[in-house]
Amino acid sequence: MIAVDWGSSSLRAYCLDDRGVVLDQRRVDVGALSCERRFADVLARHIDGWDDTLIMMCGMVGARGGWKEVPYVKCPAGASEIAAAIVSLEESTTALAGRELRIVPGMINHGSTSTADVMRGEETQIIGLLDAIGDGTHTVCLPGTHSKWAQVRDGMIQSIHTAMTGEAYALFRTHSVLARLMSAEDPPFDAAAFDKGLLRSGDAGGLLHHLFGVRTAGLLGRLSDMESPSYLSGLLIGHEIRAQSPHPRHVHLIGNDRLLTLYAHALDTFGIATSRHSEELAAHGLHRLSRLRG
Amino acid sequence: MIAVDWGSSSLRAYCLDDRGVVLDQRRVDVGALSCERRFADVLARHIDGWDDTLIMMCGMVGARGGWKEVPYVKCPAGASEIAAAIVSLEESTTALAGRELRIVPGMINHGSTSTADVMRGEETQIIGLLDAIGDGTHTVCLPGTHSKWAQVRDGMIQSIHTAMTGEAYALFRTHSVLARLMSAEDPPFDAAAFDKGLLRSGDAGGLLHHLFGVRTAGLLGRLSDMESPSYLSGLLIGHEIRAQSPHPRHVHLIGNDRLLTLYAHALDTFGIATSRHSEELAAHGLHRLSRLRG
Repeated sequence: MIAVDWGSSSLRAYCLDDRGVVLDQRRVDVGALSCERRFADVLARHIDGWDDTLIMMCGMVGARGGWKEVPYVKCPAGASEIAAAIVSLEESTTALAGRELRIVPGMINHGSTSTADVMRGEETQIIGLLDAIGDGTHTVCLPGTHSKWAQVRDGMIQSIHTAMTGEAYALFRTHSVLARLMSAEDPPFDAAAFDKGLLRSGDAGGLLHHLFGVRTAGLLGRLSDMESPSYLSGLLIGHEIRAQSPHPRHVHLIGNDRLLTLYAHALDTFGIATSRHSEELAAHGLHRLSRLRG
Repeated sequence: MIAVDWGSSSLRAYCLDDRGVVLDQRRVDVGALSCERRFADVLARHIDGWDDTLIMMCGMVGARGGWKEVPYVKCPAGASEIAAAIVSLEESTTALAGRELRIVPGMINHGSTSTADVMRGEETQIIGLLDAIGDGTHTVCLPGTHSKWAQVRDGMIQSIHTAMTGEAYALFRTHSVLARLMSAEDPPFDAAAFDKGLLRSGDAGGLLHHLFGVRTAGLLGRLSDMESPSYLSGLLIGHEIRAQSPHPRHVHLIGNDRLLTLYAHALDTFGIATSRHSEELAAHGLHRLSRLRG
């Protein structure tokens, strides 16, 4: 089968054998919400040469504005509940003739007006993870533009918590008054500055105040333009982690190496143990969901 | 004398009589850091027809990158300490021939690397306020792009706390994923949505999580594109106020009507009493500092 994780900024495709082993993989930076609805063309070109019939997809491809909106599955839910809500896609494009297309639903954590939360794509990575870690209670974090946290118990995803950490970093790094005090080019990561930001996140005063402190420290020469971006990153990631409730003792991190290194270091600083997992878990999750669906 | 409050986004000039009564006032949206260093030309044109010799200025005009950088005065300081640190400006431009130009210093709250804070211009408004409210302990808030809070005791400004509330609002309102779920034109203020945001700011989870909640609520149709901007505003102002320590029982608000209405309502919701004062206090403060300087 072919497994496709099509998010808001990239498309990752995996060619799998019957046991779910990844034989080949490709990646292209075409987001599901920014491909001008040329879904079939983009996908067909991207999996050219892979002739499996079944194509299982997850991520923003199933969001409103994506290829087809697939209703969310409610928390708590596990692999069986998610597999049961997979939707088939009727596609008559010649480019995909003979293929069987399916989209995995996202998940929703209903709550009051303001406390609802959602994810699309991350649930599939978590399902992929669960095969490896088994039953029990787990905290999972998928860092990114919108970092996702999930509580898992005995194979069931219980709750979702999203933090706009990556997007806030990009906004303040690029568009705010702080940008003037930071080098335009991304400087090398500065571990000492990152740690200062992490430490600051534990003080009183609130994030809106701590953010202005990045400017003051730059103005007074206490943070250089090369240090400030790493300090800002530590400050925001520190706020994200400290706001988690319950305070986890161990976190499974899923994501790319660069981000996982930052988060693993931050969690370690806070005395929280971590295990690191690759984004390729989406392929395992899609394979498992496909088997459950039959 | 002529009193000039020249901040980062506008220049406000006041023509005062000997007792400090405002006879005339003008405002132009030319910031001290964005006038391409044409300070003398901009000022001369703006005070044309007012023939007083003494021109007292405060605000970003005295910042690095302003007309002349004036060193900060350290907390705690009152009118006497600030007046003693006023700097004269030698300006040979014909347009300002015969004028005597002076710039009031900003203030700095020294602290550790990350806890220092600064203000320029607000100290002068606070000095103007102190004439009216007298001795005792006061909390003052000047809402804006960078909201300033100050603790005052017996005429001395003790500490400074800045929150990037206004700038964060503009960034998330305009440049983030939240912008897609908000009407492009600013809708009328929605008090109910603002209150929901205020309420949400008291929940656990942190600001980065609450911000993503604006998107989720929009996605689920729980906040319309007309309600979301007011909700976002309430959320951010709520976080700003709740982070104040010590928690004030009464706040003197200085600023424009629109912002003060929001802040007075938010503070009232949190059981905090308020008094409202106009930005014209800068003129009173400049007059008082000028008298002290002699």
